Amino acid sequence: MAGVQGSGILAPMGGSADVRDSVVKTGTGISPVERLHALIAADMAATDKLIHTRMTSGVALIPDLAKHLIDSGGKRLRPMLTLAAAEAGGYTGNHHVRLAAAVEFIHTATLLHDDVVDESALRRGKVSANLMWGNKPSVLVGDFLFSRAFQLMVETDNLAVLDILAGAAAVIAEGEVMQLKSSNNLSVTEEHYLKVVSSKTAALFAAAAESGAVAAGAEESKIAALRAYGLNLGLAFQLTDDALDYGGRTEDLGKNAGDDFREGKATLPLLIAIGRSGPREAEFWQRVIGDLKQTEADFRRARELIVGTGALEATLDLAANYAETAKAALEIFPDGEWRRALEALADFAVTRAV
Amino acid sequence: MAGVQGSGILAPMGGSADVRDSVVKTGTGISPVERLHALIAADMAATDKLIHTRMTSGVALIPDLAKHLIDSGGKRLRPMLTLAAAEAGGYTGNHHVRLAAAVEFIHTATLLHDDVVDESALRRGKVSANLMWGNKPSVLVGDFLFSRAFQLMVETDNLAVLDILAGAAAVIAEGEVMQLKSSNNLSVTEEHYLKVVSSKTAALFAAAAESGAVAAGAEESKIAALRAYGLNLGLAFQLTDDALDYGGRTEDLGKNAGDDFREGKATLPLLIAIGRSGPREAEFWQRVIGDLKQTEADFRRARELIVGTGALEATLDLAANYAETAKAALEIFPDGEWRRALEALADFAVTRAV
Repeated sequence: MAGVQGSGILAPMGGSADVRDSVVKTGTGISPVERLHALIAADMAATDKLIHTRMTSGVALIPDLAKHLIDSGGKRLRPMLTLAAAEAGGYTGNHHVRLAAAVEFIHTATLLHDDVVDESALRRGKVSANLMWGNKPSVLVGDFLFSRAFQLMVETDNLAVLDILAGAAAVIAEGEVMQLKSSNNLSVTEEHYLKVVSSKTAALFAAAAESGAVAAGAEESKIAALRAYGLNLGLAFQLTDDALDYGGRTEDLGKNAGDDFREGKATLPLLIAIGRSGPREAEFWQRVIGDLKQTEADFRRARELIVGTGALEATLDLAANYAETAKAALEIFPDGEWRRALEALADFAVTRAV
Repeated sequence: MAGVQGSGILAPMGGSADVRDSVVKTGTGISPVERLHALIAADMAATDKLIHTRMTSGVALIPDLAKHLIDSGGKRLRPMLTLAAAEAGGYTGNHHVRLAAAVEFIHTATLLHDDVVDESALRRGKVSANLMWGNKPSVLVGDFLFSRAFQLMVETDNLAVLDILAGAAAVIAEGEVMQLKSSNNLSVTEEHYLKVVSSKTAALFAAAAESGAVAAGAEESKIAALRAYGLNLGLAFQLTDDALDYGGRTEDLGKNAGDDFREGKATLPLLIAIGRSGPREAEFWQRVIGDLKQTEADFRRARELIVGTGALEATLDLAANYAETAKAALEIFPDGEWRRALEALADFAVTRAV
């Protein structure tokens, strides 16, 4: 899609004159996500209600399976983005709630299909739908939610948002197919990986924000700004996730750390570390990722190499750069609570990794 | 969806005054599908071209996998229906070609996801995409084509057709989930089975025809007629397929006969035969379908029971009734080549089983 692979991706602009110290901004006692959530609490409640209404079906397995994922504590970042973009764009109607629910349905469908694909055992700390119900229902319930998403979009009576989100859905699928090549593949370039992330993750963040702005009837420059914000936020978010899978900067490895490693996913921290490795390490990487022959101790060793080569810091630095680019895109908006909340969200995307 | 489970499904009206002898109509040397195809040859060529243009992607695996299924000799019945409905509705624009391509993409996505689901080895006589490429790409390429379908619909600039096809896609997913319960399940009722067929197969035939008529700006009564035609044609088509899986009326079992049986699918011929079985046969059905423990000779035995109990004839009779109902729905159209071609298509749906 136009713009997804724009020049801002590989070389995000940092050091904007308007960049504030993220420590100061996040040190207020409430988290940035809470701050944004408070601003759109009523809209989020309406979105949540609509999500639950529209995932029902006469076929009981559908809401059962969908509920498992939808009520498993996801942060609803994407619908939040849609609502915030609509509000920032001055929207006063109620179609943005439908759009936000549609965005969450697309995201949920992607997760369900991704579970089938990766045979991943854990998703948001719960046993994945795929393991509980099998491949079959996960694929079909994903299809159902995807269809429901388009029904909700039709109800917004706005072909432009349908165009944006249908386009994003195609790009997400392309990104997921591209990612297939990166599994157990040590020769993936960093550039290729960032293209995958732009497509499979950032495209929906970008479309979520852009479609909210379009629904609000915002002017072209603001639509483009919110799209750029969403795209860069999505990149910052995914790269931070990649770093968190190796425990982030802390020594405290959460229970889900190591998922990417165990699946042999070539994410950015790994690719950077491999690029900085000598022949002995190259042998190690080939065995644990290329051949997926791993012992219990290998994840610790991988993490040591990723931290030791500076690959973790490099990944987090790049994520921080994308967050700054996201914030810089908001400069055309007047200073105010919406802009500050979105800026804080960009900071949160990366500071949660500290 | 409204209308899908309308009263016409379980008790199709036969014996309309306008019903003609299908033998006379099909005995002209060219097949009914060829007759319809000849009428819309230019539109079909344009649709085919558009399908191939729009399934391309910078990610090579996508067109490779999609092409495997799209070029494997499918009859393109659904897009043909959309084009014919638009023409019968008096359409003079070119959006119907986009719509027809979208309908075929939705159908192809469904097949790809169904392959994943059923681990079916053969699809249209070729090795299924799933076996060649694995579950992962089949799910994702299906998602890609589904997204492309919605992009094509957006280009028709018509929210009403988007509504119809998004609704049909949701109903198809519901039908597929419903069908999960029918696998290896001897207690499925015939009514439940017909509901499954209405959803998973006939809903797309109905939507294909209806959306063509809507795009043409046809009047309400003609839209409803074409929708009813499509729905009943879809039912006739699927029930005939079910009978053909047991070799139809001939003794010549094609190479794909027995697929449903081997997967333990409880289709209508089987359900009727089971309902007419004694205790000894009940044991047989429990073993081969309920427990899926089959020997080489079991398919022949199953076919004997299905033919012997009259279940095959009953299934084909019901299919013929649906075909008559489909034709009767066309009575509000003036006699002419379009109406005759569509009538002939309904006959073809069932006579191919003789």
